[in-house]
Amino acid sequence: MNDVIGKRRWAIAEGYIPEESHGPEPEMTSHETACILNANDEDATVQIRVYFADREPAGPYTVTVPAHRTKHVRFNDLDDPEPVPRATEYASVIESDLPIVVQHTRLDSRQAENALMTTLAYSTD
Amino acid sequence: MNDVIGKRRWAIAEGYIPEESHGPEPEMTSHETACILNANDEDATVQIRVYFADREPAGPYTVTVPAHRTKHVRFNDLDDPEPVPRATEYASVIESDLPIVVQHTRLDSRQAENALMTTLAYSTD
Amino acid sequence: MNDVIGKRRWAIAEGYIPEESHGPEPEMTSHETACILNANDEDATVQIRVYFADREPAGPYTVTVPAHRTKHVRFNDLDDPEPVPRATEYASVIESDLPIVVQHTRLDSRQAENALMTTLAYSTD
Amino acid sequence: MNDVIGKRRWAIAEGYIPEESHGPEPEMTSHETACILNANDEDATVQIRVYFADREPAGPYTVTVPAHRTKHVRFNDLDDPEPVPRATEYASVIESDLPIVVQHTRLDSRQAENALMTTLAYSTD
Repeated sequence: MNDVIGKRRWAIAEGYIPEESHGPEPEMTSHETACILNANDEDATVQIRVYFADREPAGPYTVTVPAHRTKHVRFNDLDDPEPVPRATEYASVIESDLPIVVQHTRLDSRQAENALMTTLAYSTD
Repeated sequence: MNDVIGKRRWAIAEGYIPEESHGPEPEMTSHETACILNANDEDATVQIRVYFADREPAGPYTVTVPAHRTKHVRFNDLDDPEPVPRATEYASVIESDLPIVVQHTRLDSRQAENALMTTLAYSTD
Repeated sequence: MNDVIGKRRWAIAEGYIPEESHGPEPEMTSHETACILNANDEDATVQIRVYFADREPAGPYTVTVPAHRTKHVRFNDLDDPEPVPRATEYASVIESDLPIVVQHTRLDSRQAENALMTTLAYSTD
Repeated sequence: MNDVIGKRRWAIAEGYIPEESHGPEPEMTSHETACILNANDEDATVQIRVYFADREPAGPYTVTVPAHRTKHVRFNDLDDPEPVPRATEYASVIESDLPIVVQHTRLDSRQAENALMTTLAYSTD
């Protein structure tokens, strides 16, 4: 059995942060998340690039995920080098110096009742 | 690390465009989407074939995804060579001349509150 | 590029048919579906086995998916050799004599507004 | 065709048990589940480790999945060596002595209408 859990490159082809929300913040704010697991014994340095329909990609956004930790990165919160625009279709590529696992989740609270979706991201090495 | 992100052939076994919608168009129109990421340095030419329960497949529908761009293709909008029928079960096969990543999403707004689902498509080479 | 799309063995670890429904039948009946795509030039014979928490597996249920067709199999409709019980946790293994693609979807209409979820099934050869 | 269905190591990068619920218990209690299928002829011993954002991992939680059975493990119910905290982001790694299949599902009933999401977990050997 291999000790390493995950891959170094991941892609999420779906991306969209709804502009409106209902319900208490931040829990019920419409958001999109890349959930990252780093099961390694060392911290992982993760770089996220965001792709759009009609302009050059944004980023990289750099995130550190400590050893034996998970970080649920909200695209809403990324702002360096620039915020991710709302109500805009995007996609993302996530690269790490250590193997990680990435899962994509959206909570959409534009209407009174929230909707959820999730999927494992696409991985490669 | 490999420079290529994705595969050349993808399949989505689930497909269904709800006939009714609630809420403002086009954002809240019931729709089904193949989100495509082309992280290559060249444009990708993508061909989509749609399979049905009781007739020959439709297509191919040809879509260009420019270099370093994502395109969220709504099956609702495909109309050449023919529109995709509503309220009809289908599946799709997506082939590209360059490696791409494909994720499948449906927004169902038949009822007052929208429902969402998403999954990575099946990939092969 | 390989001409074959899919694998011969698939597993869906999640399974649950809600007992109640709201809305017009059969569209809005709570249901669970294995969406199967057969992109081959010949018909595929598919066998489904259903696993439970506390009894021996049921089946096999035999389904034919014609060449170049998709079939969205509702677990609700399987009744030979026995119906799939409602409000009961199950899982399934799907085997085919030809490569196929399988995606799992549930529509839950127990409450007034329907919820949806979907995922690619687990594949192997 | 290989007789073994599944892999020995799985990871779920997303994890969150909503603190509130609407509707009848336990069916409509907000919950998060790891659905495990053991299609082997022998019982599988499964160990779950839970990772957090800001503390050391919890577990292992040990679960037996009998031969030819499925077990839908609610993270809500894990309590030995400690309960999984509510309203807290986590991730999990699931290891088995035999090949299994793992699918992740959340039912969120914080609001009046429930939302659902599911995905195949990430697998490796």
